[in-house]
Amino acid sequence: MEFEESGIGEECGVFGCVAAGEWPTQLDVAQVLTLGLVALQHRGQESAGIVTCNGDCPPIYNSLKGMGLVSAAFKPEDLLKHRYANLGIGHTRYSTTGISELQNCQPFVVDTLHGKIAVAHNGELVNAVALRKKVMRHGVGLSTSSDSELITQLLALTPPMEELDVPDWVARIKNLMSETPTSYSLLVMHKDVIYAVRDPYGNRPLSLGRLVPVSKLHTSGGGACDTEGWVVSSESCSFQSIGAKYYREVQPGEIVQITRQGVKTLSVVPRPRGDPPAFCIFEYVYFARADSIFEGQMVYTVRQRCGRQLAIEAPTDCDVVSTVPESATPAALGYAQQAGLPYVEVLCKNRYVGRTFIQPNTRLRQLGVAKKFGVLSDNFAGKRVVLIDDSIVRGNTISPIIKLLKEAGATEVHIRVASPPIRFPCYMGINIPTKEELIANRPEFEDIAGHIGATSVRYLSVEGLVSAVQAGILSQQDKDDRITDANTNSRRVGHCIACLTGKYPVELEW
Amino acid sequence: MEFEESGIGEECGVFGCVAAGEWPTQLDVAQVLTLGLVALQHRGQESAGIVTCNGDCPPIYNSLKGMGLVSAAFKPEDLLKHRYANLGIGHTRYSTTGISELQNCQPFVVDTLHGKIAVAHNGELVNAVALRKKVMRHGVGLSTSSDSELITQLLALTPPMEELDVPDWVARIKNLMSETPTSYSLLVMHKDVIYAVRDPYGNRPLSLGRLVPVSKLHTSGGGACDTEGWVVSSESCSFQSIGAKYYREVQPGEIVQITRQGVKTLSVVPRPRGDPPAFCIFEYVYFARADSIFEGQMVYTVRQRCGRQLAIEAPTDCDVVSTVPESATPAALGYAQQAGLPYVEVLCKNRYVGRTFIQPNTRLRQLGVAKKFGVLSDNFAGKRVVLIDDSIVRGNTISPIIKLLKEAGATEVHIRVASPPIRFPCYMGINIPTKEELIANRPEFEDIAGHIGATSVRYLSVEGLVSAVQAGILSQQDKDDRITDANTNSRRVGHCIACLTGKYPVELEW
Amino acid sequence: MEFEESGIGEECGVFGCVAAGEWPTQLDVAQVLTLGLVALQHRGQESAGIVTCNGDCPPIYNSLKGMGLVSAAFKPEDLLKHRYANLGIGHTRYSTTGISELQNCQPFVVDTLHGKIAVAHNGELVNAVALRKKVMRHGVGLSTSSDSELITQLLALTPPMEELDVPDWVARIKNLMSETPTSYSLLVMHKDVIYAVRDPYGNRPLSLGRLVPVSKLHTSGGGACDTEGWVVSSESCSFQSIGAKYYREVQPGEIVQITRQGVKTLSVVPRPRGDPPAFCIFEYVYFARADSIFEGQMVYTVRQRCGRQLAIEAPTDCDVVSTVPESATPAALGYAQQAGLPYVEVLCKNRYVGRTFIQPNTRLRQLGVAKKFGVLSDNFAGKRVVLIDDSIVRGNTISPIIKLLKEAGATEVHIRVASPPIRFPCYMGINIPTKEELIANRPEFEDIAGHIGATSVRYLSVEGLVSAVQAGILSQQDKDDRITDANTNSRRVGHCIACLTGKYPVELEW
Amino acid sequence: MEFEESGIGEECGVFGCVAAGEWPTQLDVAQVLTLGLVALQHRGQESAGIVTCNGDCPPIYNSLKGMGLVSAAFKPEDLLKHRYANLGIGHTRYSTTGISELQNCQPFVVDTLHGKIAVAHNGELVNAVALRKKVMRHGVGLSTSSDSELITQLLALTPPMEELDVPDWVARIKNLMSETPTSYSLLVMHKDVIYAVRDPYGNRPLSLGRLVPVSKLHTSGGGACDTEGWVVSSESCSFQSIGAKYYREVQPGEIVQITRQGVKTLSVVPRPRGDPPAFCIFEYVYFARADSIFEGQMVYTVRQRCGRQLAIEAPTDCDVVSTVPESATPAALGYAQQAGLPYVEVLCKNRYVGRTFIQPNTRLRQLGVAKKFGVLSDNFAGKRVVLIDDSIVRGNTISPIIKLLKEAGATEVHIRVASPPIRFPCYMGINIPTKEELIANRPEFEDIAGHIGATSVRYLSVEGLVSAVQAGILSQQDKDDRITDANTNSRRVGHCIACLTGKYPVELEW
Repeated sequence: MEFEESGIGEECGVFGCVAAGEWPTQLDVAQVLTLGLVALQHRGQESAGIVTCNGDCPPIYNSLKGMGLVSAAFKPEDLLKHRYANLGIGHTRYSTTGISELQNCQPFVVDTLHGKIAVAHNGELVNAVALRKKVMRHGVGLSTSSDSELITQLLALTPPMEELDVPDWVARIKNLMSETPTSYSLLVMHKDVIYAVRDPYGNRPLSLGRLVPVSKLHTSGGGACDTEGWVVSSESCSFQSIGAKYYREVQPGEIVQITRQGVKTLSVVPRPRGDPPAFCIFEYVYFARADSIFEGQMVYTVRQRCGRQLAIEAPTDCDVVSTVPESATPAALGYAQQAGLPYVEVLCKNRYVGRTFIQPNTRLRQLGVAKKFGVLSDNFAGKRVVLIDDSIVRGNTISPIIKLLKEAGATEVHIRVASPPIRFPCYMGINIPTKEELIANRPEFEDIAGHIGATSVRYLSVEGLVSAVQAGILSQQDKDDRITDANTNSRRVGHCIACLTGKYPVELEW
Repeated sequence: MEFEESGIGEECGVFGCVAAGEWPTQLDVAQVLTLGLVALQHRGQESAGIVTCNGDCPPIYNSLKGMGLVSAAFKPEDLLKHRYANLGIGHTRYSTTGISELQNCQPFVVDTLHGKIAVAHNGELVNAVALRKKVMRHGVGLSTSSDSELITQLLALTPPMEELDVPDWVARIKNLMSETPTSYSLLVMHKDVIYAVRDPYGNRPLSLGRLVPVSKLHTSGGGACDTEGWVVSSESCSFQSIGAKYYREVQPGEIVQITRQGVKTLSVVPRPRGDPPAFCIFEYVYFARADSIFEGQMVYTVRQRCGRQLAIEAPTDCDVVSTVPESATPAALGYAQQAGLPYVEVLCKNRYVGRTFIQPNTRLRQLGVAKKFGVLSDNFAGKRVVLIDDSIVRGNTISPIIKLLKEAGATEVHIRVASPPIRFPCYMGINIPTKEELIANRPEFEDIAGHIGATSVRYLSVEGLVSAVQAGILSQQDKDDRITDANTNSRRVGHCIACLTGKYPVELEW
Repeated sequence: MEFEESGIGEECGVFGCVAAGEWPTQLDVAQVLTLGLVALQHRGQESAGIVTCNGDCPPIYNSLKGMGLVSAAFKPEDLLKHRYANLGIGHTRYSTTGISELQNCQPFVVDTLHGKIAVAHNGELVNAVALRKKVMRHGVGLSTSSDSELITQLLALTPPMEELDVPDWVARIKNLMSETPTSYSLLVMHKDVIYAVRDPYGNRPLSLGRLVPVSKLHTSGGGACDTEGWVVSSESCSFQSIGAKYYREVQPGEIVQITRQGVKTLSVVPRPRGDPPAFCIFEYVYFARADSIFEGQMVYTVRQRCGRQLAIEAPTDCDVVSTVPESATPAALGYAQQAGLPYVEVLCKNRYVGRTFIQPNTRLRQLGVAKKFGVLSDNFAGKRVVLIDDSIVRGNTISPIIKLLKEAGATEVHIRVASPPIRFPCYMGINIPTKEELIANRPEFEDIAGHIGATSVRYLSVEGLVSAVQAGILSQQDKDDRITDANTNSRRVGHCIACLTGKYPVELEW
Repeated sequence: MEFEESGIGEECGVFGCVAAGEWPTQLDVAQVLTLGLVALQHRGQESAGIVTCNGDCPPIYNSLKGMGLVSAAFKPEDLLKHRYANLGIGHTRYSTTGISELQNCQPFVVDTLHGKIAVAHNGELVNAVALRKKVMRHGVGLSTSSDSELITQLLALTPPMEELDVPDWVARIKNLMSETPTSYSLLVMHKDVIYAVRDPYGNRPLSLGRLVPVSKLHTSGGGACDTEGWVVSSESCSFQSIGAKYYREVQPGEIVQITRQGVKTLSVVPRPRGDPPAFCIFEYVYFARADSIFEGQMVYTVRQRCGRQLAIEAPTDCDVVSTVPESATPAALGYAQQAGLPYVEVLCKNRYVGRTFIQPNTRLRQLGVAKKFGVLSDNFAGKRVVLIDDSIVRGNTISPIIKLLKEAGATEVHIRVASPPIRFPCYMGINIPTKEELIANRPEFEDIAGHIGATSVRYLSVEGLVSAVQAGILSQQDKDDRITDANTNSRRVGHCIACLTGKYPVELEW
């Protein structure tokens, strides 16, 4: 199902770029940022922003922000003033709080005693309330409800500005990390540097890439001298669109410095109490684009493995396997392969229907989600269908689809969900409906098949999901030796499954 | 490939709706039109328009037109003034001539001695130049280059207005049909009637549907008393979105009258010289949405059959079959089934990239189409890939995709095209590149595989395409007996394949 | 009072320009048209349009139309495609019928057997209904309710196109003029010519001007060799803004041909029955900008004379004379001079208030017109004020102003109106409220002073107005001898005062 | 001359409103704010904003900001969410720094330990640089270059938040005033209170008004029970438009508390060293709307007095007196009265020309300011003209006007300027061209008449201006006894004339 339907939403995507070599270069940093954000658009469609810098003395910062998709928010003429940029960071935002205003749009820029800093943030601070109080007690007025402004003011605030001749941003970032354990993937830009930071639990993703000359893109080699710039992104899927190659992930707790000279690990902040890492497992299930790479494995492959596992856990006696387009397709293909059943398409999506205005209280509103799909009845009429979905959150969208299929001749419609039921709220950046809205917590979940009109309904088990995700990591565990430190030496594998089990990776009242 | 890439474009989609029973009804005709057009959006994204009428005495006509997608062209507040509409017609336009202006936006409305008529048209008149001269010689100034205005003025012009006390629109429509053989699917609205007309060759599609109460939608029955309205559309795919059921196609040469009482065949104009019908075969290959039904068969199924036929004609020794998303997927699945090879996804499309501005002369422009796709390398690295495309028109988009796949580890990339090469221009409404631009006419076509970097390239044969299309029709030939007349009794099956063979269904200098 | 308040509106302004000398020239015709229309903006703010032509073989026409003010309707980038224009016509529209749509926007362009023509029109055809029927009876469908489309189709229609090898546009224009006596000032562009036409009664204004080099502008001389182009405009006030000099008026019934070689009178169509001319007297009173010249006299001077006449007809025993800004100022200054009273300002206008949204039913709506004015109480507190207005049409705007003045300390407020009461509708292009809405036809007119709260109210007499207008013409009668013909030789002086007297210059059922 | 021409610009206007009596009331506070800002639009057209509050527990704040005129920035639908507002403040901004962005748009809102505050500010802090450093040294990041954000953070910062159980906003405001002497007129909103503050030097204006029932507006009485709300505004001219009556000015150094119960003086902060007040004299000359009242006198009257003084200081032997519309009209009328010469209009302004795009390097650009004016030549041809302007700043706009008049027949054109030449920059909120751009500092000022083509040029003397301004105050000095305190008891009269003399009211390195 689409995110909009399911009511689950990611907060944001972050993206940064530093031109390599002698400045100025030929690299159009603002265009790289723009396309990078377009490739992260699935992580947030509410607003978009970039801040670029020439990096010189004195550094000149330029901002561009707008509501809606990147293509709506950035006009070609607006990009003109960024033409001397040598580095920059960007952000695309999904509103979790419902307040959709330009002033919440990131990156945030503030002027400090030591010059301007710009901050882009993906995640949600578990102890935001306490931190806000602390900052305001110090006498700082906060102009938004955004965690990102909070982070920016915390960076400006401590340790005391007056004690420093030159700013020690790394000390400030480490200080920030000591104040809040998770969740954040963070880009901090100051003059000619971007600091890329991932919280010690690694809750949100962050990857590094290398821009290579277009002429060298499709060859196997490409030495360091061929690097045109360094990029950092919430997801590696954005590298393809800008002609960059995947380099590696930022590790949990790592502070990476990106300059024109390259990338360098400045510090790796350890997790308290030897806690395991807690990368959000729904990045695999839902949020990420299928071609992104996390922990050394492609998201598509993980989803396919979930489908296979689902076929083992919840087999059916059916004629064809299909999917609700488009996100559950890899799981459906995995299920079909494992079950030895033919994969067919049963629904055809109308890409244009999303933004059309429908008057309330009309017959058209009653049609609901059916408006969005055409039925490919030839492929399943007279047959028993297993329909794979990647989740059922509220239960109100799968029901009309089942009706459509039955009306068009499916004799049975079995629903198989490639993830376990969500039962608990997330406090680390994912917008999940209230506990009461989650169908897994409602009485009708007892007879969910009857409730939604399916012949049968089965979910993937928590253990099944975890093993499908971790199988690929364990098999390639020792291949990546670029980072060795406190966090990574210890337990490498670990995921946040709090929304499934209610067990959160950190104390919520941290 | 996407139409934008391939340079092949449909002209338009038309849609009409008449509320059934006593007027006024609860049916929100303008909303039905809007959603109907959204479902035809793939046939034209340049502009959209609707004209509605209350149908009463005196009839009041309201127009709404705008540039771009339906969702951009129609604002909710604009629909307000249509709230008393009992019938209406709409149009979504693809620009063939490059002149993109609001004044070319259909439907056209003109005032005549006998009141207003509104006209929506899909197709292109083969003898437009001669007809324009004829009309202008009569002293009519034409304000656009649109065939639709020409049709409208022809309807107003002949037979002479002054000789009639009451207008005989059917006589006028028949007169029009005697002046021009093809190509047109036409909706003409006057007061309380919509006339739905298809040219004698049936070159462009047109289907009838029945709006049923939402409560009755998902049941098998539903008598005439349950009809809430009648709809007519370029493609039946639009019926699903508005809660309508497919009724039947308008037959070649047929004039159907649609009123609140229902649909009625007024006349069926025969083809000259016992010519066969000439439904555009590229509606199956390209233009139509996969869930539309033409000549009793679902488009998806035809495309799948083309894929199977292609596997028979052009087999390969490969490991996996895949597709350039999204339109070639049914052909790829058909190929995979026939060849007994696994179907996998190799590319992941970024839906948002289309509308982003890219500065000329930058590295990003050089990246070309690669910007639009992510590569799912796990699914094919180290493997031989058969990539199915539905056409190669200019040859400039498949080439970078092949590079992407090879760079990501494909050992061989075989291209199989599920249609024959296009070699000739279309004069009946399809926007095809000039003969010189068509790759099939260029020297490099001799070694097209080498030219685009593929391991091998093969096309479906013309005979293969025709048999894949007609197999389904011949098998169900006698099932539909609702229409028996001059055209349909004779040779039922026949398709326009002029762009492949250069043999046009009518004399071009008609 | 402002036109918006008074409910009286002009239909339109027309403007044309032809570059002089060898083409192409340096003259940016589209910019001249744009600025010319801006200077005519007071004649219509609903929509604006231009059509330009390169004039070459083949001629290429470009249109630009938009809703609202010229500055909103024309974007700089839109003007680009007009950069090769050598001539063009433009139009700014005031909606008389309430249908505000882009398709009614002029100029109209139609393709005929002899090529395209573009038409811009100011006026209203008294026999439009009969002419529409005639055109439609011939089989022409009319797509708008606009007289201008009607004129365009009449030009295309007769005499029969087929009989002509080369088009005789002048014959067609004369034919048109024989079909309809008034009211129209018309620009017809075809290839490299603009025909400027004024109806035989001269009901609407039309003036010719000469573009001179900027360097020569502020010198007294300037021979023909210095002409950079010819312009034609509804009002001569537009000449100043584009660096043109007033040349002369187009005479009633005159057809002027404007080409790169200059202007030439092709014909002067006489009025029937030796009728006197009927130039709309409200062009002087209301519509025209004060610096325009009609019949050899400046509008400002006529208004001042009206004020003087008013002081003679309706003196008062007062302390100060003032005006409702801004249009009645010349009359007020004239009144003050004649009466020997000091002229002061009593109101200060807020230029920004016009477009602000006010919620209905609030205290702010109740404040009415007072929102638009500040009161300069120092200038009149404790004094008796004569307030000059140029008209009182509905009576609902002067009343709150009187209240404001009294509240701020005026001891008496005498209203003197510099035109007679309007009592009859106009059928020649002016949008006047219905007879019932006109305060002069309502019972309260008997005691209008009491009704609006004034100490006294007096209007200028019809005779007074006519003599104030004609005094200046008669005094300079024989100076202009450039045109001598049937119309002008006979009774030169005559004005349409039908809205004051009910006596129309032509039979309305012509 | 218009401000745009003269290159002198005001920074902003502020406006606040509190509904009186029991909440909720019928008063639509957001509409009052909107219209209030429209009436202050002449003080800033770059952006506009309002922040409203219901005032209840908990208080809910709503913001609305936008670029451009109030009418463009506020859409009717945006005002909906303010419908429960009981109080609010607004701001209209003129950009002094050239950075025109939504984020600089006021009012600023920040969350503090004690809840949110909103701040609107007119003026410029003379010691802004030092204050910014101080705030940043404390660890606060500043997100804009705006003095208003600085003020907001200063209010949040000191005295230390942690020491207070309940916030003492008055102490904080006094603390702020002790940190910066000028220039500011300030509105601070917190929960159910607006604090209205004027700096001790009274450099920027601020007035209080009382909303009265519309029915009582035009009567003389109106007790306290009839007050519907309290308003505070940069200029009293805004009161008229919303149905409010002028109450009094906020005094220099005064902190006024405005609540539903009424207005109350909380404190009056004295000026250091017994300095005289320093109200900006250019508020009289230029910025204010003519119907505003400062220091007990109407701006119009002061300007008229300047004209009279100018006639005494710089008489001419001429035939007529006139003005460059519209701002110099009162001075011109004053000059005419004093000189005993007739006042006539010589120019007619085209209100629409301002926003039209003109291509560079065309003849139309060369026409310059002449495009904006029509010439009323009848009024001055063959005569000697005295043309009154309110200032000549750059000297580049008056020159083409003089050419126009001479070309149209003026035999002599004498320029008389109703203010002295500006020679020095302003650091207190007025945007004045650089010292080099000011014509009074350039060599050609020696022969300015020759430079601009005038017959003669004379300016009002500094002494003349001061006496024209102060004459009205001194004459009514003792009438207003509502405020008696340290500031007002001492030297009441004093104006900032630093831009004329270079003597600033405070040390600039304060």
